Amino acid sequence: MVGKFITTDTPIHDATLNVLAHLPTASLDAVVDDGVWAKLADADFMRIATLLAQKSYDEGGCPIGGLIIDNLSRKIIGKGHNTLVQEDHPYNHGETSAIRDAGRADFSRCTIFTTLSPCDVCAALIYMRQFSRVVVGDITNAVGNEDMLRDKGVMVDILEDTHTIALYKKYRTEKPELDLEDWKGKAAL
Amino acid sequence: MVGKFITTDTPIHDATLNVLAHLPTASLDAVVDDGVWAKLADADFMRIATLLAQKSYDEGGCPIGGLIIDNLSRKIIGKGHNTLVQEDHPYNHGETSAIRDAGRADFSRCTIFTTLSPCDVCAALIYMRQFSRVVVGDITNAVGNEDMLRDKGVMVDILEDTHTIALYKKYRTEKPELDLEDWKGKAAL
Repeated sequence: MVGKFITTDTPIHDATLNVLAHLPTASLDAVVDDGVWAKLADADFMRIATLLAQKSYDEGGCPIGGLIIDNLSRKIIGKGHNTLVQEDHPYNHGETSAIRDAGRADFSRCTIFTTLSPCDVCAALIYMRQFSRVVVGDITNAVGNEDMLRDKGVMVDILEDTHTIALYKKYRTEKPELDLEDWKGKAAL
Repeated sequence: MVGKFITTDTPIHDATLNVLAHLPTASLDAVVDDGVWAKLADADFMRIATLLAQKSYDEGGCPIGGLIIDNLSRKIIGKGHNTLVQEDHPYNHGETSAIRDAGRADFSRCTIFTTLSPCDVCAALIYMRQFSRVVVGDITNAVGNEDMLRDKGVMVDILEDTHTIALYKKYRTEKPELDLEDWKGKAAL
């Protein structure tokens, strides 16, 4: 039997989290010990989402990442990043990308992490799919649907992440037309 | 040069429209004369969307279809159907499917046809992507976001299609759990 590359003894730093970001979700079990997931804090999952945003930025795309964990096991069941440019895709945002990756799961037992405050489409998807909780990594560059989501019964936590905020700010300065095309400023602003 | 199979002389009946439903969007130019598009009425496009819904039903999926035309040329630029079952996809509805198929287009010059009244997610996507018009084929089996879309500046036309209404009603009776999973009754009801 092949041993797991990432075990409970592996230090959790950026290089480790970057492996989790780049591995296909279906391959995580082959590489990561089950015990690792409980060691990861919300900030670690947000960091993985930010590393996915960085991957998208490096590909010339919009730097927004998303990630979904099971609340009980804290295992990643879906993740992804915006693919407006990469897939010529008009609405594959961080959240839609992660939800597509997860497939037909029971999201009422899940938390979704998004590096940027959800747009109207993603916010509607989060409550329609009945997520129990959303963690937002940046309400500096966009904001607006947090109270609506709370009204719909979704727990909303803000975890302002300085790296993800700085990355989005840089990208918006470099490619303002992409930022506008991507979500048309529609975050209930 | 290969001649076009469907020309302005081809009678527009179900068999013709079914070819348009099943052909990949990118292949339409190779098969259809440009002059054909202007001959198609809204009811014909809704019929194509219904034939896409029928295709999904025949595959064991949710019978909801979507289709996008350019307002000026009336050419189809995107189409598709719900793939909850076929792609294990939590939000690939008729509209999201057609918009994914169209890619990064300027939807402010486009009309989207949907066989069923749009859910909250698809309605948000329709106004965020700034569609000029939406044509709804069934407000009998679902209804709710029409006024909100009008408030957002989208023209909304209702074209109750007896075939599409009957197809959805049959499916809902046969597979109520799929109907509920697909959109959780979230159409601003």
